[in-house]
Amino acid sequence: VTGVEDRRRELKAALIAAADRAISGHGLAGIKARELAKEANCAVGAIYNVFPDLDALIFEVNARTLALFEQFVAKVEVSPPRAKAAGSEAVGKLVRLATAYLDFAAANHARGRALFDHRVEKPDGEAIPDWYVAEQARMFGLVEGPLRELRPDMGDEAVRLFARTMFSGVHGVVNLGLDAKLLALPPDVLRGQVELLVRALADGLLAERPERRKR
Amino acid sequence: VTGVEDRRRELKAALIAAADRAISGHGLAGIKARELAKEANCAVGAIYNVFPDLDALIFEVNARTLALFEQFVAKVEVSPPRAKAAGSEAVGKLVRLATAYLDFAAANHARGRALFDHRVEKPDGEAIPDWYVAEQARMFGLVEGPLRELRPDMGDEAVRLFARTMFSGVHGVVNLGLDAKLLALPPDVLRGQVELLVRALADGLLAERPERRKR
Repeated sequence: VTGVEDRRRELKAALIAAADRAISGHGLAGIKARELAKEANCAVGAIYNVFPDLDALIFEVNARTLALFEQFVAKVEVSPPRAKAAGSEAVGKLVRLATAYLDFAAANHARGRALFDHRVEKPDGEAIPDWYVAEQARMFGLVEGPLRELRPDMGDEAVRLFARTMFSGVHGVVNLGLDAKLLALPPDVLRGQVELLVRALADGLLAERPERRKR
Repeated sequence: VTGVEDRRRELKAALIAAADRAISGHGLAGIKARELAKEANCAVGAIYNVFPDLDALIFEVNARTLALFEQFVAKVEVSPPRAKAAGSEAVGKLVRLATAYLDFAAANHARGRALFDHRVEKPDGEAIPDWYVAEQARMFGLVEGPLRELRPDMGDEAVRLFARTMFSGVHGVVNLGLDAKLLALPPDVLRGQVELLVRALADGLLAERPERRKR
């Protein structure tokens, strides 16, 4: 039995590695059962002995991308702020997170896109695996922290939701910019726009704090 | 010669109509020469007698989408604001524009995506037709107006650029939301998030005005 388990584990690892290369190269479009099987040196049907479907492989690769992004951000956070933070430290944190996302997406374009191109809900209504939801939540936690500092009056659910919205907005600017769709900008100009966007957003949240509204 | 010109005009119109149906149904992926020719009742080669390439057809359809969006926004702008504008009228205008974009994208999903999925620069470096650039600029003008009201200190080029960045950000939230990618939200929650995002962004721009900084 151990031999069988070992073989399963090896096959899983080989398929994840093949899926990782495919997504790094061509994004989600690179995920094709026949080619993955060829790369992992197994029959096409064998894939489905170790994974329920190809989606499961995509979740594995996307989880690796999330981990890479977290490592990337951790490096940025220990380095000093690039620009003098005009106001709260939380504003500066959000700006640094956004530019880190830009840098990460520029260096890992196809990987980064796969993170967002994968549907949240499967067409058959099947839920996303809990372990992946937890990985994703940890990434959004990076945004939730400074957001909570900016707006301690916001409830947990509101913070959770708005962190995802902010991320989606930054993702839109970064990816339309990187793809030269709508925005065809030199890298430093794109970086400047991301900074302007997130700084204005954070400053606005600060200006909208209930304490500050009452004059 | 008139008969030839008439036939060319008819063929162009038939191809644009076919491309419009294809994009409305399946986005850019729906644009296939063979199927367009079949729908327009011509040979595949005949397409290239009246259009330089399929990109030219996409620009025609996208220009229609831009016109539809402008008509849609015009209706919204004459109606009274949905929520009491907290502060400047320009903030309210930007929020209404963003929610109009959400509503338009929800009702015209595939069309709307095609507007953003089409590359700004062709791979061969060939420029986008000037007439299309002008149409696009008119749409961004809708954002530039209130942005200029908010920040009269910003230069023309800065306003032009940041209007596109704001649009890209809203596009990111709207489309990740509508596609149930990253954000799988009920429509009214998505609308609330778009409003929060744009209001904070606009309030931040207002708070960052140089006059206000000097205390």
